[in-house]
Amino acid sequence: MRAVDLIRKKRDGKELTPDEVTWLVRAYTEGTVGDDQMAAFAMAVFFRGMGGAELAALTDAMMRSGNVIDLSAISGLKVDKHSTGGVGDKISICLAPLVAACGVPVPMISGRGLGHTGGTLDKLGAIPGFDVALDDARFIAQIADIGVALIGQTSTLAPADKKLYALRDVTGTVESIPLISASILSKKLAEGIDALVLDVKVGSGAFMKNLDDARSLAKTMITVGERMGRRVRALLTNMDQVLGRAVGNANETWEAIEVLKGGGPDDVVELTVELGAEMLLLGKVAESIDDGKTRIRRAIKDGRGLDRFRRIVVAQGGDPRALDDRAVMPEAPNESVIACPRGGLVSACDVEAVGRAAMLLGAGRARSDDVIDLGVGFEIEVRLGDRVEAGQALARARFSDEARFNAASKALVDAFTFGDKAPPATPLVRERLG
Amino acid sequence: MRAVDLIRKKRDGKELTPDEVTWLVRAYTEGTVGDDQMAAFAMAVFFRGMGGAELAALTDAMMRSGNVIDLSAISGLKVDKHSTGGVGDKISICLAPLVAACGVPVPMISGRGLGHTGGTLDKLGAIPGFDVALDDARFIAQIADIGVALIGQTSTLAPADKKLYALRDVTGTVESIPLISASILSKKLAEGIDALVLDVKVGSGAFMKNLDDARSLAKTMITVGERMGRRVRALLTNMDQVLGRAVGNANETWEAIEVLKGGGPDDVVELTVELGAEMLLLGKVAESIDDGKTRIRRAIKDGRGLDRFRRIVVAQGGDPRALDDRAVMPEAPNESVIACPRGGLVSACDVEAVGRAAMLLGAGRARSDDVIDLGVGFEIEVRLGDRVEAGQALARARFSDEARFNAASKALVDAFTFGDKAPPATPLVRERLG
Repeated sequence: MRAVDLIRKKRDGKELTPDEVTWLVRAYTEGTVGDDQMAAFAMAVFFRGMGGAELAALTDAMMRSGNVIDLSAISGLKVDKHSTGGVGDKISICLAPLVAACGVPVPMISGRGLGHTGGTLDKLGAIPGFDVALDDARFIAQIADIGVALIGQTSTLAPADKKLYALRDVTGTVESIPLISASILSKKLAEGIDALVLDVKVGSGAFMKNLDDARSLAKTMITVGERMGRRVRALLTNMDQVLGRAVGNANETWEAIEVLKGGGPDDVVELTVELGAEMLLLGKVAESIDDGKTRIRRAIKDGRGLDRFRRIVVAQGGDPRALDDRAVMPEAPNESVIACPRGGLVSACDVEAVGRAAMLLGAGRARSDDVIDLGVGFEIEVRLGDRVEAGQALARARFSDEARFNAASKALVDAFTFGDKAPPATPLVRERLG
Repeated sequence: MRAVDLIRKKRDGKELTPDEVTWLVRAYTEGTVGDDQMAAFAMAVFFRGMGGAELAALTDAMMRSGNVIDLSAISGLKVDKHSTGGVGDKISICLAPLVAACGVPVPMISGRGLGHTGGTLDKLGAIPGFDVALDDARFIAQIADIGVALIGQTSTLAPADKKLYALRDVTGTVESIPLISASILSKKLAEGIDALVLDVKVGSGAFMKNLDDARSLAKTMITVGERMGRRVRALLTNMDQVLGRAVGNANETWEAIEVLKGGGPDDVVELTVELGAEMLLLGKVAESIDDGKTRIRRAIKDGRGLDRFRRIVVAQGGDPRALDDRAVMPEAPNESVIACPRGGLVSACDVEAVGRAAMLLGAGRARSDDVIDLGVGFEIEVRLGDRVEAGQALARARFSDEARFNAASKALVDAFTFGDKAPPATPLVRERLG
């Protein structure tokens, strides 16, 4: 087989056979096919798409490029959740322990933040000592023991995806639904899961700016999952405003802990309950979505979720006092209120710009090797449709550096539009698929 | 500027500014933009095409990536010819000295053969001692002295094209009209020419299999040439059968010499006269195509073309006895007749397959590092529409190796179709543009 022939075949709109796809991924992982040929192939996929069997073969080959964790010795259906990324999305931190507490094992592998989106690993990093780099054996043992582990992608997990993702990032081939789908699923399925709930964000702070694209990604992943014998369900959820109030790292973790304690912002609670119910349904612990919601709410109320999170923190070497005392996690020394520049109704929010403002403050990374400041962040004080007065608090910021604060605060104010009309109310869960 | 932004811009169907294109080509030539990003860009161009100003900027940047030869000290308009490649195309060898003999300077840079197509440099290599690797100073001096030089692409000429062409070859991005156009024009304009005649081959032995694609390439190059202040004219010529009789290297050079002596196959003579007339018109030596044809025919008849070729051979270190004595050039030891397998009318010829048969015989290269046998080749004895008897000579072959001959002879026979109907007669020059 020659890579150039496969590139030309895809370029001309034909479907590669599973054998051809498997060969290409293996050759690329081993390095006998170079980045030049893979970049051309990825761009051809951008334009031509992929068929179902072809995409399943790609996902499978990428999954098998490294270790595939075997969790079959652990009873119960293993279920994970994946979010396509937004601003203020700390859901994983409260969701995973709640679902585990309800009896569904959750082997959860998360990522770091880049650009305007934060990452669960960074947020967990605010808990002193918390180790997200468990090896496969510890990962499996912890799931067997407490039903849940929260770790990062290891070097042995889907290395083809790691290599291809880095290539796509510099060659303008990130925005391809089949490639996004294969990237997510290959990693997730390598964790040894039986089912997956997708949280596909839609809106100004999301990768998918409109419902059509979000739906298309969700449908693609549901179909590929089915072909590979895994159930996938998807919620399309609103990212036209920040999820919750906290945007940062330590403050987001704290907000998730508040949810586990029965508090927290309504939207964070609602999304946790919705995604949790889906996971319990897939894990065959709940009989219906409503039953699942009831179970998740009960696990919040009776403190089983918080207790499970405490066990996670202890198992992964973190300081469990962080759950009781905010001061245990980093907090930047300075605080300042950012004021609304005028009065009126909050009519729009460029959530991606809010994410970039947080990055300017030091909470995020422009490049993957940037160091972030876990103790800085915003608490957003307004919601879409709120009536505000000029000078009223738009947000509170914690910051370490005055110059960074000034730039971030200006960017944050610019992200909001104040006007005479409230935007149409959009439900948090916009669609449910799978 | 970041390459990824330019790739995304092109991918999304937008036109790059001349500054952006220039930056990209320079960064690629210097190596700060890698093959991965350039491959993605080339594939995006394959799908999206390029606008006029964008393509002129690409051509200009590729031309300026190395030395641009200055021939302004030599009087007269300098004109070259470029063929898109066919089988049996030895025209350059007789054309260049004829045009120079008529008073138009011809700085001609040719290539080597690859795949089914032969290359002028290989054919000239059959003349013992002939040196195609002149440096810029000798190239210029020879044009000043005898009005013509026949050389290969030097390492200082359009290095960006050399690098990009090798990349396109392995990434399935050869077949892109703007990239083909930029590749040809950047090299040709770096020779210091004022005008160019294109011989765009159309048919089974050509890169362009149909008139539409050939016309599109010709129009693109004419437009880009105009934007860059160079006149370009194009002939679309028939490649549904081999040009002339000889397919090989030494034998093709000999056929071109026969044309200079007033002999040679009719189609080789006709195309030489047609292309020569275009060059004389562009060089402002002829007043019309008809006047140009008359001048070229006269230079054949009175031996000025042959004499000019002799001067080229001597100037470039070759043995001029090769013009008088076929035995001076390599000739393979064995000869055999390949018979028509059945009687009937010669109704079709897969000319690409004929080229591949010659490659099997040893006359061409499957890979650029293959060594070719200059003394082997075919003399094709039939033309489309000929009525033949079974057993009659289809071709005569000169060969060195029996096994190679057997494979090549079978492939040659398979390239021809014999039937009841003659194909519609197609004129050699199908269209004239510019």
